[in-house]
Amino acid sequence: PGVPRGRGCAGSREVMPTCERYAVRRLPFARLARGDVAFFERLMPGRVVTAEEEVKPFNVDWLKSVRGCSQLVLKPQTTAEVSQILRYCHERNLAVNPQGGNTGLVGGSVPVFDEIILSTALMNQIISFDKVSGILVCQAGCVLERLNEYLEEQGFIMPLDLGAKGSCHIGGNVATNAGGLRLLRYGSLRGTVLGLEVVLADGSALDCLTSLRKDNTGYDLKQLFIGSEGTLGVITAVSILCPQKPKAVNLAFLGCQSFAKVLETFTTCRAMLGEILSAYEFMDEKCMELVERHLKLSSPVTGSPFYVLIETSGSNSTHDEEKLNNFLEQAMASGLVTDGTVATDDKKIKVLWGLRERITEALTHEGYVYKYDISLPVGKLYDLVTDMRARLGQSAKNVVGYGHLGDGNLHLNITAESYSHSLLEAIEPFVYEWTARCSGSISAEHGLGFKKKQFIQYSKPRQAVVLMQQFKAMLDPKGILNPYKTLPSAL
Amino acid sequence: PGVPRGRGCAGSREVMPTCERYAVRRLPFARLARGDVAFFERLMPGRVVTAEEEVKPFNVDWLKSVRGCSQLVLKPQTTAEVSQILRYCHERNLAVNPQGGNTGLVGGSVPVFDEIILSTALMNQIISFDKVSGILVCQAGCVLERLNEYLEEQGFIMPLDLGAKGSCHIGGNVATNAGGLRLLRYGSLRGTVLGLEVVLADGSALDCLTSLRKDNTGYDLKQLFIGSEGTLGVITAVSILCPQKPKAVNLAFLGCQSFAKVLETFTTCRAMLGEILSAYEFMDEKCMELVERHLKLSSPVTGSPFYVLIETSGSNSTHDEEKLNNFLEQAMASGLVTDGTVATDDKKIKVLWGLRERITEALTHEGYVYKYDISLPVGKLYDLVTDMRARLGQSAKNVVGYGHLGDGNLHLNITAESYSHSLLEAIEPFVYEWTARCSGSISAEHGLGFKKKQFIQYSKPRQAVVLMQQFKAMLDPKGILNPYKTLPSAL
Repeated sequence: PGVPRGRGCAGSREVMPTCERYAVRRLPFARLARGDVAFFERLMPGRVVTAEEEVKPFNVDWLKSVRGCSQLVLKPQTTAEVSQILRYCHERNLAVNPQGGNTGLVGGSVPVFDEIILSTALMNQIISFDKVSGILVCQAGCVLERLNEYLEEQGFIMPLDLGAKGSCHIGGNVATNAGGLRLLRYGSLRGTVLGLEVVLADGSALDCLTSLRKDNTGYDLKQLFIGSEGTLGVITAVSILCPQKPKAVNLAFLGCQSFAKVLETFTTCRAMLGEILSAYEFMDEKCMELVERHLKLSSPVTGSPFYVLIETSGSNSTHDEEKLNNFLEQAMASGLVTDGTVATDDKKIKVLWGLRERITEALTHEGYVYKYDISLPVGKLYDLVTDMRARLGQSAKNVVGYGHLGDGNLHLNITAESYSHSLLEAIEPFVYEWTARCSGSISAEHGLGFKKKQFIQYSKPRQAVVLMQQFKAMLDPKGILNPYKTLPSAL
Repeated sequence: PGVPRGRGCAGSREVMPTCERYAVRRLPFARLARGDVAFFERLMPGRVVTAEEEVKPFNVDWLKSVRGCSQLVLKPQTTAEVSQILRYCHERNLAVNPQGGNTGLVGGSVPVFDEIILSTALMNQIISFDKVSGILVCQAGCVLERLNEYLEEQGFIMPLDLGAKGSCHIGGNVATNAGGLRLLRYGSLRGTVLGLEVVLADGSALDCLTSLRKDNTGYDLKQLFIGSEGTLGVITAVSILCPQKPKAVNLAFLGCQSFAKVLETFTTCRAMLGEILSAYEFMDEKCMELVERHLKLSSPVTGSPFYVLIETSGSNSTHDEEKLNNFLEQAMASGLVTDGTVATDDKKIKVLWGLRERITEALTHEGYVYKYDISLPVGKLYDLVTDMRARLGQSAKNVVGYGHLGDGNLHLNITAESYSHSLLEAIEPFVYEWTARCSGSISAEHGLGFKKKQFIQYSKPRQAVVLMQQFKAMLDPKGILNPYKTLPSAL
């Protein structure tokens, strides 16, 4: 866990510019002029990046699937600087692409054209942590894993965890309403984020950075910015409720002979592990093959078509182990599970989690990856993988399914040597129509960004999208914040 | 628990009309005409209430502290009817007061003038419940306690619980972002509410009634309606994630010799009970006196200045009892707790919960109650009670403090024989200024409604309030939905 994204990513091949591949038309924003750069250099000397080679990594997403052509990266350190940047850009009609750790998977974190990149990389200060309440307040650019390490020293943890933890910023996590591995236990950011500081499109700062568990004074404005992918404002600071660090963590990595058994194992373990269940992940055998082939990670459990990873977190190791053992005995005795291993020490736990967390990385070694992040009624979760595999036959290299089963969240990934429009057309809109028929979500946790925005209507009624556009028009009338993202260009 | 509000409430004395007591000016809405009533009678025959005596209870709040003078109560059964009602009222410029169980404590649930009352009382159908995911979908008028009973039969519970459970509607709970007794464990409605159906001011229905644990497709519109107190739309249906019914519930009712010990007991039990802690409530000795005097409920634990109620909920009774006993031994041995009792059977648990839950009811027997619902850093929680008691001296009958300590939420209540403006002036704005100095919230869970809306600036910056007013103007341009509530009449 904690592999910074960027390392291990698919080679150095050139990425086709987004505007060419997708034939997007640039909106009539102003173009960057020499005077603009001079203004920013006066505002924040030494933190204005213009050299082409230095700007390049900010223009390309981690998957190397989209590429912008920005000429300018700004690295503010304070909210006041973010305010000044946006006030200037708003006045000048310059488009802005807010960027955190650039680990997004839907092309939301890089420019489409020449938008100015506003990076939160230097906004990495912890503002306060209260050990009685467990409330952390920090700047938006703090890296998730650093925050978790800081908290662990004080007996707490972050309420979210995800594969990109080594690079992703908490501000980006909030802006994309990141889900991840602990959602099953600690709930979504909509419950754990207590306050936000946001700079609006016109440069005004909105202070909703309260540190209260409960506050019913008026509309909860911060919610609108959670999951808005930088299109309504730039998150500059976050107040978040952190759970206590569990005294005991156990992991079980199990093999199941069918997806039906994966499901039955889930309901059984939910009942028997109850309040100590903290993750229930699944992956198919193809995932394990790719992790072994590309990353040389070998699984201690083999020979099953499906694997599940069950984590418990609790306050009493004896009690937790007893609960886990009771569950495992029952699962083995009733044939739900045919093979498995258990880990209680940190090192083995990390190794086992790596098998699950590094699937995304392993997939990038395959070539081009068509990624889908779908919410479905849990019983139908794997049918989509099976149907897709049958539909694509030999035209895809691999079709794999894994994800957060406990949350009804499937990661469906289809790989090919390189991008092909005909393969894309075989996948889409089939995958979205399939999902819509089950009243699922076409983006459970990744967001819409650039790549999925035109498909929003498969999960949201027209009237909801119209209302979203009204919010956008109200908060960012010039449309300078992360343009070409989240909302469809036309209805 | 589960005492329907309405019973036991303070006598039959007449309540002064709100518009007189507070000298509010009526906004220029249309006045109800005979043709309007005829329209509604055609639309929903038999569910249009106009008889003065029948309308009366809908005009007065449960506390008997505010009174409107509506002449019409409508009882729709379907979302389509709510749409038609609002479309008509919008067209005619008639103001509407949405009303659930009318258990609110800030005057948000009754009209101020002659607003038409739209009651959700007959929208009480359960739409679906899925036992695998634990997701319940139901109409807005379902009574919380009925829902909980329905779920318990299937091995689940509602993620919220509050004293008014016997009367309050789930739609009202969501519209006010109700907190209550289980928030410590299951989090806020912002995390557990998965979907909403809302009818907007112009009568159009907004369908965000998804049943997915994760859905990041565009802005999360439903959040704006959670906690907006019926001022932005009328919630007609709710989709909510319900936890499994715990197999074991234990209660400890303990006496502490100081508030410092109440706090230390909290941090100790949080560490030792960990994931099974499901409530940590506190009350001062005055509360217990009033519950005994007015409701004849006697506490099994006496002689302490403070009491705490600790609930555990877990999946293994042996484990839970062991954890609780270890904690109690330590708490007694270290002198944190001087006396106490433990309950594991349902009947005794209900009796002990009653001591805490019925404080609100006991207070109404005192005469007039000035109610404050404050979020504060937990260490300062009781200082406000002490300061207020010193400030008011003999001019108040009683000054009591109790509440959800685990959430940093104090219920400060001041009683007097009857309403007095001079006593109010001794309390306000002192209480709000005190709270603002600690960066607290002047309404943790009750909302702003009619009574607190003018004090929003003590907890929210001006810019946030301006933004809220913009949302209101956008969603309800004529201002017909629950006027005179939540937002201040001027800045």
